[in-house]
Amino acid sequence: MRNIKLTIEYDGTNYVGFQTQRTKDCKSPTIQETLEKALKRICKHKINLVASGRTDSGVHALAQVANFKTNSKMPLDKFRVAINANIPEDISVTKVEEVASDFHSRYGAKSKIYRYQILNRPYRSVFEGKLCYMIPHKLDFDLMKQEIRCLRGKHDFKAFQAADKKKKKSVRTIKSIKLTQKGDFIIFEIEADGFLFKMVRNIMGTLIEIGRGRFKEGSLKRILKSKNRKLAGPTAPARGLTLIKVKY
Amino acid sequence: MRNIKLTIEYDGTNYVGFQTQRTKDCKSPTIQETLEKALKRICKHKINLVASGRTDSGVHALAQVANFKTNSKMPLDKFRVAINANIPEDISVTKVEEVASDFHSRYGAKSKIYRYQILNRPYRSVFEGKLCYMIPHKLDFDLMKQEIRCLRGKHDFKAFQAADKKKKKSVRTIKSIKLTQKGDFIIFEIEADGFLFKMVRNIMGTLIEIGRGRFKEGSLKRILKSKNRKLAGPTAPARGLTLIKVKY
Repeated sequence: MRNIKLTIEYDGTNYVGFQTQRTKDCKSPTIQETLEKALKRICKHKINLVASGRTDSGVHALAQVANFKTNSKMPLDKFRVAINANIPEDISVTKVEEVASDFHSRYGAKSKIYRYQILNRPYRSVFEGKLCYMIPHKLDFDLMKQEIRCLRGKHDFKAFQAADKKKKKSVRTIKSIKLTQKGDFIIFEIEADGFLFKMVRNIMGTLIEIGRGRFKEGSLKRILKSKNRKLAGPTAPARGLTLIKVKY
Repeated sequence: MRNIKLTIEYDGTNYVGFQTQRTKDCKSPTIQETLEKALKRICKHKINLVASGRTDSGVHALAQVANFKTNSKMPLDKFRVAINANIPEDISVTKVEEVASDFHSRYGAKSKIYRYQILNRPYRSVFEGKLCYMIPHKLDFDLMKQEIRCLRGKHDFKAFQAADKKKKKSVRTIKSIKLTQKGDFIIFEIEADGFLFKMVRNIMGTLIEIGRGRFKEGSLKRILKSKNRKLAGPTAPARGLTLIKVKY
């Protein structure tokens, strides 16, 4: 069987995340089931799509990676056209490649890069609106930039793990981290070998509290070391978060 | 009465243009009526909003300018918050200023800048999709760039005027024009003292025919000089067009 790797861009606004859940109590679709339905139509057999990892409800992607096995003999360039014609406009397959049979989107991933965008002004952006979290109150960018330094390297991120979905192993390595300003936007980028459930949004929620002056200087380091979720800030909204890249 | 100037950003996808038409046979709203309804609620009296000019159905704006007279004593910063709270998310008032009583958005406009974006690749962009026209066939960028030179300066643009809405005076002055490439995007920017109905989209439609090799080198100049609409290319779709700036 051929092993096909897809690179996928999506606006997560209207989806309950990438991965199809076992409990089907939600009416909104997942990215996975939308793609699997299109692939089944094209390949004429049931498709099991494996992604690099799940993205939460409302989270976007510029380059999610997923793969599937198929008997279909369709040429690669036709595959992309066929898939894009069978999925809604808020999802786009940007690349289709044939890969070695042992390539696995999840197990093979070495690191992932996420971006979180804040629009720091008191009025919305029509065109960037879906991709950012608007905060009308002026944030202390310099302090925020200084605070994130402590995250670099290997740490136990238990304090930033979703309270309801705890993993036993909560140690992750942050390979790079940066905070930049571009016009009214504050952009946070983080690369790690893996992320805990809601980890980026919990770090971001804490960082926002610091930027607003509600948590004092040094709080991020103190909370990280505490390993106590209760000390961290609230979870920042999903709309600001985008999966930028998966490295193999 | 106070004279209030608004700078407005909008995604034109769901609107039949800026200006409210006399014939009310269309169910989709205009940007103008959407704003006037919100302003009436805020100012407690009927508002007549005058814009720098109309934008067609489906055309976007980053900085459309409009003004209105009111007795309302509301402070300017509260005005912006109040308007944005009373209009849908695909419109955003980015600036509210109090201007001299003789300021008129349309009569006072010295020039306008429009941008037309082509996505020149065989698959869509989820996040830029609404702001561009996708052309899967490879376009000859260098030839297109060379062709547009003839448009600079004062010309009779009759050949690029909408066939159904002819103005008697079709002479306009192009102050600047440029074509650039950014990744898979081809971006056309044009500044003029005024534009005829569908002029940018008709120039663009002609330029695309040249880029695809269906019209030969020198066609743009020949068609401009002919003053004959029938020789020009088709009207390019509205979705790629955005009003970028109005100069006073």
